[in-house]
Amino acid sequence: MVQAQIGVYGLGVMGGNLARNLAHHGNSVAVFNRTPTRTRHLITAHGSEGTFVPAETIEDFLAALKRPRTVIIMVKAGAATDAVIKELADAMEPGDIIVDGGNSYFKDTIRREKEARAQGLHFVGMGISGGEEGALNGPSIMPGGTEDSWKVLEPILKSIAAVAEGEPCVTHIGENGAGHFVKMVHNGIEYADMQLIAESYDLLRRGMGMTPSQIADVFAQWNLGELNSYLIEITSDVLRQVDARTGLPFVDVVLDEAGMKGTGTWTVQTALDLAIPVTSISESVFARGLSGQSAQRAEARKINLPGPDFSIAQQNEGTFVEEVRKALYASKIVAYAQGFDEIAAGAQQYGWNIDLGAVARIWRGGCIIRAEFLDRISDAYASGRQTTSLLFDSSFRTVIGKAQDSWRAVISLATQGGIPIPGFTSSLAYYDGLRSPRLPTSLIQGQRDLFGAHTYRKVGVPGVFHTLWADTDRQEIQQN
Amino acid sequence: MVQAQIGVYGLGVMGGNLARNLAHHGNSVAVFNRTPTRTRHLITAHGSEGTFVPAETIEDFLAALKRPRTVIIMVKAGAATDAVIKELADAMEPGDIIVDGGNSYFKDTIRREKEARAQGLHFVGMGISGGEEGALNGPSIMPGGTEDSWKVLEPILKSIAAVAEGEPCVTHIGENGAGHFVKMVHNGIEYADMQLIAESYDLLRRGMGMTPSQIADVFAQWNLGELNSYLIEITSDVLRQVDARTGLPFVDVVLDEAGMKGTGTWTVQTALDLAIPVTSISESVFARGLSGQSAQRAEARKINLPGPDFSIAQQNEGTFVEEVRKALYASKIVAYAQGFDEIAAGAQQYGWNIDLGAVARIWRGGCIIRAEFLDRISDAYASGRQTTSLLFDSSFRTVIGKAQDSWRAVISLATQGGIPIPGFTSSLAYYDGLRSPRLPTSLIQGQRDLFGAHTYRKVGVPGVFHTLWADTDRQEIQQN
Repeated sequence: MVQAQIGVYGLGVMGGNLARNLAHHGNSVAVFNRTPTRTRHLITAHGSEGTFVPAETIEDFLAALKRPRTVIIMVKAGAATDAVIKELADAMEPGDIIVDGGNSYFKDTIRREKEARAQGLHFVGMGISGGEEGALNGPSIMPGGTEDSWKVLEPILKSIAAVAEGEPCVTHIGENGAGHFVKMVHNGIEYADMQLIAESYDLLRRGMGMTPSQIADVFAQWNLGELNSYLIEITSDVLRQVDARTGLPFVDVVLDEAGMKGTGTWTVQTALDLAIPVTSISESVFARGLSGQSAQRAEARKINLPGPDFSIAQQNEGTFVEEVRKALYASKIVAYAQGFDEIAAGAQQYGWNIDLGAVARIWRGGCIIRAEFLDRISDAYASGRQTTSLLFDSSFRTVIGKAQDSWRAVISLATQGGIPIPGFTSSLAYYDGLRSPRLPTSLIQGQRDLFGAHTYRKVGVPGVFHTLWADTDRQEIQQN
Repeated sequence: MVQAQIGVYGLGVMGGNLARNLAHHGNSVAVFNRTPTRTRHLITAHGSEGTFVPAETIEDFLAALKRPRTVIIMVKAGAATDAVIKELADAMEPGDIIVDGGNSYFKDTIRREKEARAQGLHFVGMGISGGEEGALNGPSIMPGGTEDSWKVLEPILKSIAAVAEGEPCVTHIGENGAGHFVKMVHNGIEYADMQLIAESYDLLRRGMGMTPSQIADVFAQWNLGELNSYLIEITSDVLRQVDARTGLPFVDVVLDEAGMKGTGTWTVQTALDLAIPVTSISESVFARGLSGQSAQRAEARKINLPGPDFSIAQQNEGTFVEEVRKALYASKIVAYAQGFDEIAAGAQQYGWNIDLGAVARIWRGGCIIRAEFLDRISDAYASGRQTTSLLFDSSFRTVIGKAQDSWRAVISLATQGGIPIPGFTSSLAYYDGLRSPRLPTSLIQGQRDLFGAHTYRKVGVPGVFHTLWADTDRQEIQQN
């Protein structure tokens, strides 16, 4: 009997595709699913694609694996994952490796790694991006866990990962929850990227009166330049799609209430815990939330809330499309800078040694946010030119320097024209905030000290102060 | 020996002031503090102000109280609160009432209420707003807990609450964690209000080149009109303040890194859980976060990031100050509408029967966000004119209808002038989003279906759909 190199537990679409991907690259794969019909179906349909060892009991499944037994769990995040981990851990031996390939919350991963370690097992939380297609043909892979488990996983994961410029899109992110943390932020950035694209579309559609098909051409053109990316590419595809039943553009017949699966929400909640401003991401999550407020939106449609009487198209001097492109690119740089800030802050908070340049490199292929642009980010970190903010990198400074007039002009026109572009505006506000030598938050500190005795610090003067606001002479006293 | 009507456990500034407030209004108050010197100090300094019963042991403290023994805890939120609850619960008898007057997280309050109920005790999570001064002279009070405990607390709390137009600023918000939930959102709104004021100041300061003292006059003027509120009033005070050491304006010598205590963060994190867009609040929390990024901001000051070459003052035609006022008012309405949406969603999620009009009424006095404007909100809910969004109320629609041209003009100028006003822009983007009959999120739904098979719904067609994007004919299949 073949001793399989790796096992996959859970053969839904993602798990099945990942198992096939492993088999396609010469890995012998033990496969198991709680409902054995799924296992049998995989073998019937795809058994000839490589070396599969199907199992219908946990005992057979583990017996089919080489030591250390390595199992990738591909089940629903949450309670199902905990149940499967327990099932495996009870049957495994010290040194064995459990890999969670689902979209688990990184704090769950930290807890599970600790629990597994107490049992002598390795536990690897592993982010996988690229959807069903990526799982089958090459995803971007973000494993956490120990160095020891990485040594076992490295050749296997490198064999199945997407390849970008000759490099497999996988790297050991860091210990315990680091992989799932980075995958979470990846998804948050993805939310922002999609929102910025949607705003660009809206500006051309409602602002300029262009058709979806014309706008598809614009995105196809943009995809040839510095915006080249998977999301820009598929935007053209979606915009060109026509509804068979009505002959109308697909985007006009689809309900405009965007769904969410939770990772965007986690990204923003975690950023709030870390006090890292990720406004481009939060606005994109909330934009989906607003789109889903069916009852409010239905009433708003009836009421006809006052809007402006202003035509963007009439103000346009033939340069608007290019201005939107520049505004999109500048906003996108801000969204990525915020996401990388969150990763850096998370690494510091949780004691992970994360190579931000390597993260950018493994996102160049396989994943949803893959883009040429990530080379620039990788360069910025690799060269050591800067690490405090991507926006300080000379390359991005130049881009924004050239784009900012357009960025401001587009926002100004959209504001007057009544088209909501919260991603664009929050990105610019962040940039202008970061740029400001002084912010009006000194006033907020004064208010807080006045009503809540929250104290304040002073520029260039050590110590903490409180003003006795209620007294006539309003004396300032030093607290320490 | 006097049998005290109520006890206060924890005699820090807030607890001491609350005890004095209780005594001033004829309530006999048992007082206890872990360190008895504080208790003795309160009695020495303020014992003549009313009927106090000092106690130095928990046994004496509880023995001094009438049945049902009612104790307000005024200690630090978190572990300290849990410890005190345990200490009291162990010594109390069924029917007694523990009131947590701290800024506890509402989920902790839900848990604690459940635990106390299992012991036969009443537990009331109670939000108190108004800072030290409010605690002493009349706060706005937001108690949760059972109807039975409200019956006991009602006369006592009504005696010490602020009074607005003849009504005490206290009402029974709802069961278990409802009071702390509403207090949390109150604080989130407060963050937004303060940020919007700070942005208005920044526009007049950096945009128009006005001095803090001139701007203090503007706010004093604004305080005479529809913006009349405590926060506008104290803004004048802070802006007029001069640093004794340097003779410079106070706001110029204070470090512009704003502090946070957590309730703003909770408000946004909770809104994310509820999928309620609270963008005006999230931008204000993140604006404080950005202000505190010392290392990044220090580097940004050195690098001199590219900014615009545009003078707001030169564009001004003498109307800018009034336009900022209108923009501030419109943005503020959005922030409050978002906050009330979060309360409504929280009530639904946690099964609370919250009277939103009553919430607006008890915020009219005592608390930090007290404002004339809350009468309008209270009217909107009380009249039953609408409940879906405050923005749909005819009164606010009229205000925004009149303000929107200015709102858009101010944002447009600030955008061109490089002054970050994330609160203004996110508020307008929310308004324009709510107003939009169609949003570009249909494109996002298409992208999600293409890369992740996340499915979509269609306008006016029942069912859930998925397009086979990878196939040549891109067939649409109905999933259910």
